[in-house]
Amino acid sequence: MEAGPLPSWNDGAARAAILDFVARVTEEGGPGFVPAADRVAVVDNDGTLWCEKPAYTQVLFLQEQLAAKARQDPELAGDPIVAALLEGDLATATAGGPGPVAAALLGLHEGLTVEEFGDAVAAWFGAAEHPRFGVGPDRLAYVPMVELLGHLRAHGFGVFIVTGGGVEFVRAVSDRIYGVAPDDVVGSAVEVDFARRGDRVVLVRTARLRGSPNEGEPKAINIQAHIGRRPILAIGNSAGDREMLEYATTGDRPSLGLVIDHDDAEREYAYAGVAMTEPGAEPITTIAAARGWTVVSMRDDWARVFATP
Amino acid sequence: MEAGPLPSWNDGAARAAILDFVARVTEEGGPGFVPAADRVAVVDNDGTLWCEKPAYTQVLFLQEQLAAKARQDPELAGDPIVAALLEGDLATATAGGPGPVAAALLGLHEGLTVEEFGDAVAAWFGAAEHPRFGVGPDRLAYVPMVELLGHLRAHGFGVFIVTGGGVEFVRAVSDRIYGVAPDDVVGSAVEVDFARRGDRVVLVRTARLRGSPNEGEPKAINIQAHIGRRPILAIGNSAGDREMLEYATTGDRPSLGLVIDHDDAEREYAYAGVAMTEPGAEPITTIAAARGWTVVSMRDDWARVFATP
Repeated sequence: MEAGPLPSWNDGAARAAILDFVARVTEEGGPGFVPAADRVAVVDNDGTLWCEKPAYTQVLFLQEQLAAKARQDPELAGDPIVAALLEGDLATATAGGPGPVAAALLGLHEGLTVEEFGDAVAAWFGAAEHPRFGVGPDRLAYVPMVELLGHLRAHGFGVFIVTGGGVEFVRAVSDRIYGVAPDDVVGSAVEVDFARRGDRVVLVRTARLRGSPNEGEPKAINIQAHIGRRPILAIGNSAGDREMLEYATTGDRPSLGLVIDHDDAEREYAYAGVAMTEPGAEPITTIAAARGWTVVSMRDDWARVFATP
Repeated sequence: MEAGPLPSWNDGAARAAILDFVARVTEEGGPGFVPAADRVAVVDNDGTLWCEKPAYTQVLFLQEQLAAKARQDPELAGDPIVAALLEGDLATATAGGPGPVAAALLGLHEGLTVEEFGDAVAAWFGAAEHPRFGVGPDRLAYVPMVELLGHLRAHGFGVFIVTGGGVEFVRAVSDRIYGVAPDDVVGSAVEVDFARRGDRVVLVRTARLRGSPNEGEPKAINIQAHIGRRPILAIGNSAGDREMLEYATTGDRPSLGLVIDHDDAEREYAYAGVAMTEPGAEPITTIAAARGWTVVSMRDDWARVFATP
């Protein structure tokens, strides 16, 4: 028997909702038909496409980079914020608010060209190991989601990653892991300076954020800025994805909102989908029920989670 | 005989430089090979892809929209800046600097959703006529350039428009005219506000620019922000494209810079490629000679200019 689409998804309401939606919007002449040019899918990254526990992959990267830099620089190592960060003591590190921590982390790659930063990320991925699963964090993409991105592309969708993470961090691996080109990644960013070095023009990272972090309302706003069309499919796993999902599912076209519920402590983790910046906010699964979005149970809807055992 | 590539280009140094460059970067195993993922081409719009005289197409649009609004609104019509603008008296309109003019024009579409703005642009293109050529401005794309974009795409290039014009203005027609999807257009932009109207989320245009106009250094910076890779081919026609061309042509890869020289008063216009914002600056054709960029003479290198007679 030929394998059907989405082989790593169990039969159930979530898989059916996805297949039905894709069939509906691609049926020429049908009541739900959407031209390919308007088949835009936006997908969160951390916790939606890859594992985000025990910490965001980018945080693991920054911790390692900070430790490496502190080993070279006693003054940096003696900074109480940095010392607390390196001990994993977030309470002390953030006692004065998130500003000093952000400054310490944003300053890590100040002065690097964008190419040098991409090389640093790629090198880190080549050596890093996830603390629980013991494999590179780039091997902890969710197989069912990678299949879903392929299914969407095979049906004429443009697939964009819309992440709260750093856009250049995700771009360094998005094509290899997800088949998503760098220009199809929308994320948080730092400002870069235009500079001449000898005969060459380079773009140099600063320690300043470019606009707001790409979470909440900025996700919807940056989708328009970058993609220029209202999506018809949005997928997320935290309250920081709420506005993006609302934007995608309240246009004139048929639409689908999907929410990944992390309810699988055995194969991955079990936790509520709150936003990093608003831990007290309503979990996205509660909002999904009110909004008619489809909740994907990692435990029940996914036959497998990772490609590695 | 089968038609060769770029049929609307005359044989000459410019056509040869283009064909040689494309052949070189696509020859697998060759010394200049560039993988498809890194074949990024960035192309200016006004004066590079379509006619920008006697005024930018977007200025023609804004003049018409301002006139229409002033007919409905006597108070607006009585504003001395607006009155001067409508009479084409730029000297009076800008006597107090460009700020009041920009405010009057940016305010025109404040409060529209992004979809409503796109509809307004599309409607204008459906009725507008170019003052000299008597056809819609969307029919004044340069045929040789449209051929070139197709040739690049056929050889694995990603083709992006990088315009000083408004990104949403160009997106409204970029796919139809150039085959460039809305998400592959980078331009100047206004801020939009996230808003709820009943059950719907909408994005509403403000009168505030988002960052700097997309000219000069910001073109290079926004290429990185949006595309995430250094281009290997850049095409422009004014000093506002200089930094983008420098960025594209000073990387590690083989690269090509192309500059369109408007030297054809008979079929189009003859003028120097200076930047709107710095009319006293060096023309881009002078810079091209020093930088080794290829200058395309509209008069000599193009067998035809427009698709319409």
